[in-house]
Amino acid sequence: MRPGLSLLRGLPCFRGLPDEVLAEVDQLASIIVVDHAQELVRQGQKPDKLYYVIEGQIALSSTAPDGSTAVVEVVHPPGDVVLASLVLDLPYLQTAYAVTRSRLIAIEADGLRALLARTPQMAIGMLQTLSRDFRALIRQIRDLKVRTAAQRLGAYLLALVPDPAATEATFRLPFEKGLLAARLGCRQENLSRAFAALRELGVETRGARVTLHDIPRLTAYAMPDYLNDPELARPGQEAMVAAG
Amino acid sequence: MRPGLSLLRGLPCFRGLPDEVLAEVDQLASIIVVDHAQELVRQGQKPDKLYYVIEGQIALSSTAPDGSTAVVEVVHPPGDVVLASLVLDLPYLQTAYAVTRSRLIAIEADGLRALLARTPQMAIGMLQTLSRDFRALIRQIRDLKVRTAAQRLGAYLLALVPDPAATEATFRLPFEKGLLAARLGCRQENLSRAFAALRELGVETRGARVTLHDIPRLTAYAMPDYLNDPELARPGQEAMVAAG
Repeated sequence: MRPGLSLLRGLPCFRGLPDEVLAEVDQLASIIVVDHAQELVRQGQKPDKLYYVIEGQIALSSTAPDGSTAVVEVVHPPGDVVLASLVLDLPYLQTAYAVTRSRLIAIEADGLRALLARTPQMAIGMLQTLSRDFRALIRQIRDLKVRTAAQRLGAYLLALVPDPAATEATFRLPFEKGLLAARLGCRQENLSRAFAALRELGVETRGARVTLHDIPRLTAYAMPDYLNDPELARPGQEAMVAAG
Repeated sequence: MRPGLSLLRGLPCFRGLPDEVLAEVDQLASIIVVDHAQELVRQGQKPDKLYYVIEGQIALSSTAPDGSTAVVEVVHPPGDVVLASLVLDLPYLQTAYAVTRSRLIAIEADGLRALLARTPQMAIGMLQTLSRDFRALIRQIRDLKVRTAAQRLGAYLLALVPDPAATEATFRLPFEKGLLAARLGCRQENLSRAFAALRELGVETRGARVTLHDIPRLTAYAMPDYLNDPELARPGQEAMVAAG
């Protein structure tokens, strides 16, 4: 099934493109569904499709030469899967698989690269979305270099709080703890230790259910990125920082 | 002083652009020199220029809300400084400063963004260079998540060996150990421990001078990225892996 112009127009990458260009993209595209744990692309293979997540969650993992594997990111709608490799036509650095049953737009790689060469205005939207993804990786590198595992976990949990003005919150972890540990860059036993360390700061877990009993205190401990990053700032948070 | 068309044409970002477009870029550009430790851009400021390093080394550091600072990357010629922030016109996530006296091409941000909107074919080269930078960050995230500090240091030292077929090598570290520790994401005392751990694997240091006495052994320990990454593979290395 083709995605159709209105779905394509909603992707940040294609925003502002004229209908005749979107119609060409539509000809190269289809909607696919992948089941939980199903592999979408494999590290080392040449890109044959570009994907946009429209429902679900896709994990991107990367295996080092010694066989150890890191989860680099978990992509949510409307994120792309492997744009940089597609642009360069170089082997994927990452394996992508579905964390939950997911729906995606899949676009033929060769056709898309040819269309891009003919229609360079498409490159501007791609450059903008890749720039946003790039800045997210810069933040993650900083996170890995300066925070402890417990602070990384705290900052991660705070980002899941829907109401920025809340002082307490309860929610479910978006995926299981093994994947969370891999995303945060620690072993599972270190994640358990990190949860234990956060207990004193009012973080309670029961399975996948997490309650933050004292958000200001956890914020003061984990110092999440939105505190000094206007791109991430959430209404209410700035006031909280100014006050505390 | 303007850089001139031939220097601009040599930048991967502008490769293949017609002379009339390069002439417009040239009108927006100048060559600047920054001294050791001089700041080029500061985290939190709006981008006013895009920089390309043509000589020297520029460190990119990023400060978390608690004040702790990570060195994200050290940029060598012909790398760019802060392309992603310029594209989005969002505040810099990083502070850039000169590690050594450096020469750069500085291009006016507003003029360049206007030119980009008028001349979308420029976006293709930018998309390609940003894609390469993006893949380097993916590798760094994997490095931080799966390797110990000693393995990261070993992989870093192996990347400095000029002759891929060598079994021994002597070279100088490109910058001082404080910056090296920050780039590798460890404290300076951990870097000293990492050097000590590598001593048994034939890594000898005297100040900034490093000798690798047994490259195959260090390679087997650190398992650097080029062992399973065709983009990084160096002639001779593949044979070495196949043999070992």
